[in-house]
Amino acid sequence: MATECLDKKQTIDLRKKFIGPSCKVFFSHDPLKIVRARGQYMYDENGQQYLDCINNVAHVGHSHPTVVRAGTQQMELLNTNSRFLHDNLVLYAERLQATLPDPLSVCYFVNSGSEANDLALRLAWQYTGHRDVITLNNAYHGHVSSLIDISPYKFHQLSDDEHKQSVHVAPSPDVYRGKFRADHPDPALAYSDEVRDIITRAHKRGGKIAAFIAESLQSCGGQVVPPAGYFQKVAAHVRAAGGVVIADEVQVGFGRVGSHFWGFQLQGEDFVPDIVTMGKPIGNGHPMSCVVTTREVAQAFMAAGMEYFNTFGGNPVSCAIGLAVLDVIQNEDLQGNALRVGAHLSRLLGGLKETHPLVGDVRGPGLFVGVELVRDRVKLTPATAEAQEVIYKLKEQHILLSADGPHRNVLKIKPPMCFSREDAERVVEKIHLVLSGRAAGAQSPGHRPRHRLESAGLETSNSSGSAKETNSLCLLTNKKRYYFP
Amino acid sequence: MATECLDKKQTIDLRKKFIGPSCKVFFSHDPLKIVRARGQYMYDENGQQYLDCINNVAHVGHSHPTVVRAGTQQMELLNTNSRFLHDNLVLYAERLQATLPDPLSVCYFVNSGSEANDLALRLAWQYTGHRDVITLNNAYHGHVSSLIDISPYKFHQLSDDEHKQSVHVAPSPDVYRGKFRADHPDPALAYSDEVRDIITRAHKRGGKIAAFIAESLQSCGGQVVPPAGYFQKVAAHVRAAGGVVIADEVQVGFGRVGSHFWGFQLQGEDFVPDIVTMGKPIGNGHPMSCVVTTREVAQAFMAAGMEYFNTFGGNPVSCAIGLAVLDVIQNEDLQGNALRVGAHLSRLLGGLKETHPLVGDVRGPGLFVGVELVRDRVKLTPATAEAQEVIYKLKEQHILLSADGPHRNVLKIKPPMCFSREDAERVVEKIHLVLSGRAAGAQSPGHRPRHRLESAGLETSNSSGSAKETNSLCLLTNKKRYYFP
Repeated sequence: MATECLDKKQTIDLRKKFIGPSCKVFFSHDPLKIVRARGQYMYDENGQQYLDCINNVAHVGHSHPTVVRAGTQQMELLNTNSRFLHDNLVLYAERLQATLPDPLSVCYFVNSGSEANDLALRLAWQYTGHRDVITLNNAYHGHVSSLIDISPYKFHQLSDDEHKQSVHVAPSPDVYRGKFRADHPDPALAYSDEVRDIITRAHKRGGKIAAFIAESLQSCGGQVVPPAGYFQKVAAHVRAAGGVVIADEVQVGFGRVGSHFWGFQLQGEDFVPDIVTMGKPIGNGHPMSCVVTTREVAQAFMAAGMEYFNTFGGNPVSCAIGLAVLDVIQNEDLQGNALRVGAHLSRLLGGLKETHPLVGDVRGPGLFVGVELVRDRVKLTPATAEAQEVIYKLKEQHILLSADGPHRNVLKIKPPMCFSREDAERVVEKIHLVLSGRAAGAQSPGHRPRHRLESAGLETSNSSGSAKETNSLCLLTNKKRYYFP
Repeated sequence: MATECLDKKQTIDLRKKFIGPSCKVFFSHDPLKIVRARGQYMYDENGQQYLDCINNVAHVGHSHPTVVRAGTQQMELLNTNSRFLHDNLVLYAERLQATLPDPLSVCYFVNSGSEANDLALRLAWQYTGHRDVITLNNAYHGHVSSLIDISPYKFHQLSDDEHKQSVHVAPSPDVYRGKFRADHPDPALAYSDEVRDIITRAHKRGGKIAAFIAESLQSCGGQVVPPAGYFQKVAAHVRAAGGVVIADEVQVGFGRVGSHFWGFQLQGEDFVPDIVTMGKPIGNGHPMSCVVTTREVAQAFMAAGMEYFNTFGGNPVSCAIGLAVLDVIQNEDLQGNALRVGAHLSRLLGGLKETHPLVGDVRGPGLFVGVELVRDRVKLTPATAEAQEVIYKLKEQHILLSADGPHRNVLKIKPPMCFSREDAERVVEKIHLVLSGRAAGAQSPGHRPRHRLESAGLETSNSSGSAKETNSLCLLTNKKRYYFP
């Protein structure tokens, strides 16, 4: 198969002609045409390599041969629906269950994180007989209509009368920018009390709580790490109201957080969700997803009498690919790699914070790290345009990064899990150069070349420079020029 | 890869342990374990071959080498999201558009028929600014919560208070069993007048019509073929009310109807839906789907300002597979095959109707054929148990068929499109033998072996037998014995 049939302009023109204009490309002013990828590297039509810090879907590395082989061999044999018995389905379910606390034992296979979260809602509604859902501010849970309803990241763009009365938005447990911050004596308690108060108000209006849903760590919502103990306290309130807790692991599961296989496990062994949804990394890009719940919830769903059938969900090819992904995570110790490289990356990024006032916060476990850019470390004024500029400048340096969060000012680092120490050093060095206005091609005249960032950490490389000079940053965006001290 | 790792009992036990009990298997009393498939044949763990008349997903034939090769080669190169430019996405969209009337020109790629229909609703809601949806009785449009709401096939199982006020159910345009039948002077007009009346009643209650949604031919709803002109008349009413028409082609598209590439085209060139949804056969089992709409609808959706992003939708592997499926349909003239073999199949099945009073109706174009079994051709008493028994007896004859429709009495024949004349003759002969109580192993003592069904048609083979003797049928089901004259 040819890697490129059309020249880039033709591709762009056909895209404009035939693809929904709501479907955006990265770097819309000068989008990338990627024709090949391997491991943590992507290649454009000219063979230019890019370091991929974005694709948490290509979990075990782009085009991993073990995964490709598993998919190919199963496609050659059989690909049909789960109304026939097949070993791959049950072997995969068994393997997946082994990564979870015992009560989470019943699997439903679907095709996307959106299908998973929608099914999680259906399970919750059926099990509890209740309807109301509590979601976190800035949350994103998927693109189907039921999930737009519970995704403030999306529905904040709608008019007020399109908001559902049965959906309640709790503050995001963000200890950097949120209602209760790191200086609060017990932010976990304070944020969970907010959920308790929402339940009380819902009850007064006659509402009944079906579910609390949250990403174990908020991704699109700004790379938010909930304070330890938060989910336990929330779960107590929600379960007392007859509801269930749904942990959305679509972005963060499968070892990415390094210390654990699942993000919710960061909260401690005493927290077990009632429903866990999985997606993106599960098939390394192959469309598959899963919902796992307890026997009790599954029985209640069945007792309603409605069959659940998903045409593609749990087909032998998807499950073969899922098994191969689990094999690679284990055989290549990618969870351990996420822990080690993630710690190194976070330490280096912490150095950036020392050097660049624009870097307000560095947070996140393993290879799920956010760098929040602010214009003022006290007021926390979001450095939105600057974040966009950093992203574009990094692209010029052949590093792919994105910015997200409600203010689009959080650089998100969530690369394939084979990301190396050297990759971490390279991305941090390039961020440093961009922030210093010294990246090649950056429009910051007057800066003389400086010594290369030492892999030992930024502290060293900047200890001798004057703060003013080192940190001054000039950014051009939307025809405006921004200067930062 | 071994085709079987577990013995069948282990597979069943693990399935009970780890897979949601709402997920049903075919032939639940004695499910099939299928380990391999090719073309129109599936093979169980003992190498027993089954003729597959069920899998309309394995559209160009199970494990088609062209499709497998396309998927493999692209997996080896790149599989990432549509935020990067890629030729496969735009080339596939261009190829798909070429099969559709010109106004249907903007594509959105998703992962399943459910995601497609949910997005179709979102497009309709946004474009019209209205909320109400008209759906057909017995319709099934998918498993996500928004689609359960518009799927009477599913929501009839719910309590009344779970039905949405904004969803209106029009009679299924079924000219065999429906409100207006073949003897009606103008069933298309009569059924479309029902939609007009629903719109009038909705308006009186303050409702505003966003969409009318229907499968171009109802599948789960009982293999219903709408009378010609029905959709044109409905579209006129719906558009006059400011709504759009959604044609759900998830089950019937991609040449299955033989004479046309899309089911809606059976209604004539003067009918063009505003939105078409596609699914099952599009990737020959690979999870992919598509929504195609007009530039106007797409622009209105974009104007709302909300990005549409689907993680897996339109990835290079899915599109490579989609392109290969289109290639095979064209290169192997599978649409022509559906037309020719479908006509032969329908003629043979028509012969069954002459011979077996249980066969009330044979209907459907191409390789999308339904055989409705009734106990009484005047009262149309559904022969539900008998249909189940036929299905089980055919399984013993190594033929896979299912029964569906609101009464589960319609045998559905929707095989891979490489189905041959000989396959058609085989399945009809076996149905004939089962209905005659003469299938090997059938519990119908007293029947002597008869001459083999001639491939020329059943009329011949039964012309000499006494009607009583030929047609008497004895079925055992649920410990009851049914006799039919």
